[in-house]
Amino acid sequence: MRLEDVLELLGERNYVKLSRELSDINAIDISELMEELSARDSLIVFRLLGKDLAAEVFTELDSDRQMQIVESSTDQQVSRIINEMYMDDMVDFIEEMPANAVKKILRNTTAENRELINQILHYPEKSAGTIMTTEYVVLKQYFTVQQALDYINKNGVDKVTVYICYVTDAERKLLGFVSLRQILTAELDQRISEIMDDDVVYVKTLDDQEYVSEVFIKYGYTAIPVVDEERRMVGIITVDDIIDVIQEEDTEDFHRMAGLTPSEEPYLSTSFFKLAKNRIGWLLILMITATISGGIIDNFSEVLTSVVVLNAFIPMLMGTGGNSGNQSSTLIIRGMATGEIEHSDWKRVLRKELVVSIIVGTILAVVNFFRLILLDKVSPAISFVVSITMMMTVMSAMVIGGLLPIAAAKFKLDPAIMAAPLITTIVDASCLIIYFNIASAVLGL
Amino acid sequence: MRLEDVLELLGERNYVKLSRELSDINAIDISELMEELSARDSLIVFRLLGKDLAAEVFTELDSDRQMQIVESSTDQQVSRIINEMYMDDMVDFIEEMPANAVKKILRNTTAENRELINQILHYPEKSAGTIMTTEYVVLKQYFTVQQALDYINKNGVDKVTVYICYVTDAERKLLGFVSLRQILTAELDQRISEIMDDDVVYVKTLDDQEYVSEVFIKYGYTAIPVVDEERRMVGIITVDDIIDVIQEEDTEDFHRMAGLTPSEEPYLSTSFFKLAKNRIGWLLILMITATISGGIIDNFSEVLTSVVVLNAFIPMLMGTGGNSGNQSSTLIIRGMATGEIEHSDWKRVLRKELVVSIIVGTILAVVNFFRLILLDKVSPAISFVVSITMMMTVMSAMVIGGLLPIAAAKFKLDPAIMAAPLITTIVDASCLIIYFNIASAVLGL
Repeated sequence: MRLEDVLELLGERNYVKLSRELSDINAIDISELMEELSARDSLIVFRLLGKDLAAEVFTELDSDRQMQIVESSTDQQVSRIINEMYMDDMVDFIEEMPANAVKKILRNTTAENRELINQILHYPEKSAGTIMTTEYVVLKQYFTVQQALDYINKNGVDKVTVYICYVTDAERKLLGFVSLRQILTAELDQRISEIMDDDVVYVKTLDDQEYVSEVFIKYGYTAIPVVDEERRMVGIITVDDIIDVIQEEDTEDFHRMAGLTPSEEPYLSTSFFKLAKNRIGWLLILMITATISGGIIDNFSEVLTSVVVLNAFIPMLMGTGGNSGNQSSTLIIRGMATGEIEHSDWKRVLRKELVVSIIVGTILAVVNFFRLILLDKVSPAISFVVSITMMMTVMSAMVIGGLLPIAAAKFKLDPAIMAAPLITTIVDASCLIIYFNIASAVLGL
Repeated sequence: MRLEDVLELLGERNYVKLSRELSDINAIDISELMEELSARDSLIVFRLLGKDLAAEVFTELDSDRQMQIVESSTDQQVSRIINEMYMDDMVDFIEEMPANAVKKILRNTTAENRELINQILHYPEKSAGTIMTTEYVVLKQYFTVQQALDYINKNGVDKVTVYICYVTDAERKLLGFVSLRQILTAELDQRISEIMDDDVVYVKTLDDQEYVSEVFIKYGYTAIPVVDEERRMVGIITVDDIIDVIQEEDTEDFHRMAGLTPSEEPYLSTSFFKLAKNRIGWLLILMITATISGGIIDNFSEVLTSVVVLNAFIPMLMGTGGNSGNQSSTLIIRGMATGEIEHSDWKRVLRKELVVSIIVGTILAVVNFFRLILLDKVSPAISFVVSITMMMTVMSAMVIGGLLPIAAAKFKLDPAIMAAPLITTIVDASCLIIYFNIASAVLGL
C-alpha cells in the first residue's frame, strides 16, 4: 500500500476500506507509513488497527509518535497496547518516554511486569540484562515430550521464541536446552531430560553487550539464555537484538576513530549544540598538542630560512605519514574489534608493520626521488633529503600506528581512540624531527 | 575440555576416553581445540569424532585444516563428510580449496549437488545467490496441517531451519510462508493455504548482500527466501550468515575510510606483499596530490620568509582542519551506511554542518587567540590572522567533509572513499590558501 493510497482513503474518510487494507500489511511497513503522515492522520491510522497489529506497530514507531499515542489514549487503551509488548521492547520504550508518560504506563501494567521493568532498568548500561527479554519457554526435566508439546501449545503464544526451550530445576537454575525440532522428532513418551542438551552456552546479566555479541557470532545461535550470579535463568537474548548491538558497537568505533564522542542518536535529529559538543573535545586537545609540531618548526626556523624550498615538502611528508599511520592503526583496531588480533600478538604485528613499511616506504621514496629530480627539477641533495625522510616517516608511522592500539588495549583503553586524529598528531611531530635532522646533516646546515 | 587434557590423552594414546569426552563438546569448541594442535594430532582427533559431529566440526575448521583432512582421506571418507554439509558451507569451502582438492570433492558428491554447486559458484560476487543455502522446507498450498507436520517430520532432518516453511506452486513460484508455530497452533485438518501469510518478504539471487542485510535489519526475520528472476524459489538466507555480511561490510568501510584496498583476509595471515599492495595505491595518489599544498606554499614563499613565525602554525591549522573534516565525513558516511541519511538530505546536512562549524570554529578560534597572546606572547595581529584562519578552515572542512560523501553517492561511488585521507588532502590545500590570503591582507604583505 502506497502513501498516496492511504492519503486518498483518509481524505475520503473511507475508514472501513483503509482498516481492511491495513490489516494485510506488515507492521514494519505500517509504522513507516505512519511516520510519513501528519500527527493527526497517523493517530487515525493507529486507531484503525486491530489489537494485535496495533501493539506490533506501536513497538516499531519512533518515540515521538509513541508519545503522541500514549498522550491521546485512555488508561485502558494504553494498558491494552503495552501488555501486548515484549519486555525488551517495553523497557526500550519506557527509557525514551518523559516522566509523566512513564507514570501512565507503569500504572497500566501488571504488578509483576512493573517489578520486572524496574529490575531491568537497574542493570548497568549496555549489559546483557538491559537487552534481554523475559518471554521464553521453560520446561522441566521430568516432562514427557507429549507434556512439553502441550505446554508449548498452551504457553507459547506470547513467547518471543518457542523454537528453543530451556530446562530449569526447582530453583530456576539453568540445566540445559532443547530445540523444538528435537522435541518434534522424539518419541512422545521420552523425557525431556533424555533429549535435552546440557552443554548450554549462556551469558550473565552483567556481561557487556559486546561480549554477548561475540558469543552469538562464535556459536551462531538464534537465542542465548541469560542467568544471574546464581545461574538462575532470568531472560533470553535473541539474534535480531544482537544485530542492533553489532551495528551500535561498530558505529561507536567509527565515531571514536574520528575523534568524536560516540552517539547513538541519529545525525539528522541531533541538535546543533549536541553535535558541536560531541566534536569539540578532541579538536581542542589535538589543537593544543599540535603546537608541539609548531615548536619543532620554530626550533629549526634557521634551517627553513636558509633553504626555503624545504617548506614546500612539509605538507606532503606529514600527509603521507598521517595516511600510513592511519592505515596501520585501522587494520589493527578493526582486527582487535573482530577478535582476530589480541594484544599478545604485538610481536607479530611489529614484524608485519616493519617489513610492510620498508616495502611501501621504499616504493614511495623512489617514486618521489625521481619525480622531484625529473619533473620538478629539484636538486639531487634536496630530493635525497625529502625521499629519505619519506621512507623513515612511513616506517615510524606504520610501526606507531600498528602498536599504539595494542598498547591502549593493554591499559584497558578502547583501541579505537588510537586512530587517525591522535596518530596524525604524533606522526606529524616525528616526521618533522626526522626531516630537519636529516636536512641539517645532509645539507650541512 | 581443556587443551592440556586433550594433549594428555593423546600422549597416553587413550583414544577411547578421548573419543567419549569429545562427543560431549560443542563442534565449535572442538574446531578451536583442533586449530591449537599439530597437524598430526588434529587429524587423530578428527578421526575420533562420530560421523555427524565430524561434518559439523569440519565446517568450522580453517581452510588449511580442511585441506589436510581432504588430502589424507579416502574418497569414501570425503564423500561421507561433504554430503553432511549444508550447501552454503560447502560452496564456501570449495572456494577456498586448490583445484585438485576441488576435483576430489566434486567427484564424491551427488550429481544433483554438483549442479547446484556449479550454479552457485556462477552468481556474481557478494550477491544473494552466493550466500544462500538450498536446504529449506517447501510445503504445498493444498497440504493439511497434519500432512505438513508429517512432511516436516520426514524431510526436516537435514534442513537448515524447519521453523519457517515456504509455500510454492507447481512451477516452484513462491506463494507465501508459514511458521512452524502457526502450524502447531492450527487445527490438524486446516489447509496450509488458510494459515499461510502471502505478504512474503524475499530477495532475488542477483541482489547485493548489503541490500539483503538491510532487509534483515528492517524486518528482523531469522530467514528470508531467495527467488530467481521468475520468482521461482531457489534458496534461503539465514540470519547467522547475515551477521557475517554486516561485519564484512563494516570492515570494508573501515578499510576504505583509511585509504586501504578492502580485504577480507585476516591481517595476521596476510602476506607482507599483499599487505603492502593494499596500502600503496592510495598512498601514491595522495602523495602526488599533496604536492598541490606544496605548490601553494611555494607560491607564497615571500609571505613566509618575511614573517617566518607564520610557518609554526601551519601544522596546527592543517591538523585541526583535517580532524574537523574527518569528524563530519565519518558521521555522514556512517549515517548513509546505516540507512539514516540519504542523498536527498544534502540540504539538511549542509545546514547542520554550517551551524555546527560556526559554533565549533568560534570556540576553537577564541581559545586559540587568547592562548597565543597570553601564553605564547604572539603579536595580536598574527594571533588574529591565525585564529580567523582557524575559524574559516573548520567551517570549510566541516562543509566539505559533510557534502563530499553525499556527492560520491550521487555519482554511484562508495561514500566511504570520501574519508580522512582524501578530505585531509583537500582541506590542507584550502587551509593554506585561506591562511596566506588572510595573512597578506591583514599584515599588508
